[in-house]
Amino acid sequence: MKIALVGCGAIARSQHARALAGDTGFELVATVDPRATVPGFEGRHYTDHQAMLAAEPAVEAVSVASPTGTHFAVARDALLAGRHVMLEKPPATTLGEVVELQRLAAEKGRVLVTSFHAQHNAAVERAREILEGHPPPESITIEWREDFERWHGGQAWPWQPGGFGVFDPGINALSVLCHVMPAAEFRVERARLRLPPGAATPALVEMRLAWEGGAGDAAFEWRRGGEDVWNVTLNGAFGTLLIRGVRTLLQDGAVVVPEGPNLEYDGLYCAFRAAIAAGRSAVSLREMRIIEDALAVAAVEHGGEAL
Amino acid sequence: MKIALVGCGAIARSQHARALAGDTGFELVATVDPRATVPGFEGRHYTDHQAMLAAEPAVEAVSVASPTGTHFAVARDALLAGRHVMLEKPPATTLGEVVELQRLAAEKGRVLVTSFHAQHNAAVERAREILEGHPPPESITIEWREDFERWHGGQAWPWQPGGFGVFDPGINALSVLCHVMPAAEFRVERARLRLPPGAATPALVEMRLAWEGGAGDAAFEWRRGGEDVWNVTLNGAFGTLLIRGVRTLLQDGAVVVPEGPNLEYDGLYCAFRAAIAAGRSAVSLREMRIIEDALAVAAVEHGGEAL
Repeated sequence: MKIALVGCGAIARSQHARALAGDTGFELVATVDPRATVPGFEGRHYTDHQAMLAAEPAVEAVSVASPTGTHFAVARDALLAGRHVMLEKPPATTLGEVVELQRLAAEKGRVLVTSFHAQHNAAVERAREILEGHPPPESITIEWREDFERWHGGQAWPWQPGGFGVFDPGINALSVLCHVMPAAEFRVERARLRLPPGAATPALVEMRLAWEGGAGDAAFEWRRGGEDVWNVTLNGAFGTLLIRGVRTLLQDGAVVVPEGPNLEYDGLYCAFRAAIAAGRSAVSLREMRIIEDALAVAAVEHGGEAL
Repeated sequence: MKIALVGCGAIARSQHARALAGDTGFELVATVDPRATVPGFEGRHYTDHQAMLAAEPAVEAVSVASPTGTHFAVARDALLAGRHVMLEKPPATTLGEVVELQRLAAEKGRVLVTSFHAQHNAAVERAREILEGHPPPESITIEWREDFERWHGGQAWPWQPGGFGVFDPGINALSVLCHVMPAAEFRVERARLRLPPGAATPALVEMRLAWEGGAGDAAFEWRRGGEDVWNVTLNGAFGTLLIRGVRTLLQDGAVVVPEGPNLEYDGLYCAFRAAIAAGRSAVSLREMRIIEDALAVAAVEHGGEAL
């Protein structure tokens, strides 16, 4: 199936284009970006997604990896033009945008997929399988602390309204949690945010999550320097599961799934292909709902260092 | 059907108890409140909702009119005890709480109803009927400005995290909008909030809403003094509809529905009774989703006078 990739930034070049060069059932025939291109890609390039949609009637699917603030407009135009759509994380700026795209996809008989790459790891999948046979976890701890400069150095958009702040990477942790606890409806009992000088979005979030059968704490932090910490720990009848760095799984301290290769984006495109084959959209709203709930009830502090 | 009323504050005394004394299909047999009672009510009173649930097995339905922050716990316990539940607006503190209650109601085979009293007016219902025969409105204007002292004087909770601020009354405007445009998925394109000194929630909100076929502006304001302004104006193929003060409808300047009596709470309980009879929950998430979307993308200013 012919596919177009909208957005040629870092993640498109390093992950999307690489995955699409493999055996995903898609053939990348066009890219779109007003400024960048994908080095080495020899297909057609457009600076505007509407021009691409008009010129490429054979493109049946569109992968949207442009900045989050543009997702809604690009996806809407693609669905209106009768194409299937996959959205990079975060899927859009608001829940309302995602729900409207979901409605539009249903109306047009096309498939919409929200994609959360961190879910597509063997360690995460194995954790889900282990949890499946037990009552829900009694407690969890999420720690998601990373160096702002290393991953987002020089970028201003994360700090602007709708930019999500540390929740932009933090949504990966929530997507892991939602994947391993597919039946849980999470409630934010309380949240504390800290906004750096001049920022509209948080660099630090601490929140209390609850679900039927348990409760736990999550901390998301952007900081200067230090090692990245990406840990999701779950305690329950299954013992203690630690999903470390997204790609390693430990049970009661013993390695169950050792760190494997990064095949996240291969997994994303396989899931997109499967959704199209089944004619069924796959939209997850829970990750963004947790974030919006946290922002709605949060006690907000101002301070800390600018990053 | 025997019903208990949880919460005996101003709205419970002036509206809920009055409506339940009428012909709604419910018989009020118990009230719950740690501090207040309903003057003139001669049934049983409890200071704790769990004590009431334990002592009143014949109570099949529970109406939750206690402070918003307590809704989730009260409703959860009532559903777990096998009772049908109606939630005063705002239905809960977060979307996650409402969705979890929805899940629980389905699991228990009981009915959950989110109630938005402003929807139950002849003017609002007539506006919905007029809109039904036309394409969606091309534009709207919402103005919801009221005196904080008159309606919420001395209350601290609206300013605390999760208190919704001016969105606590403002959700009434959004419930009118959602009722007359039942098929629309609203998107918040941008929002501006102003927080008074020491407040965690806004006294002023201006936002841009969009939907398939149109866009418009909403302003919510808490202020000192002045007349209350509660206007929802819609423009489209039907001309201009103005829902004024929730109970009057004008079309192109001419009164279509003159101001009638306030039967909002009679309408609420009839809807609850109908939902129970049909065995079908009636949960609306759109109002709270618009609010959470607005809070998530908002540019926040601090200032203005303390109210």
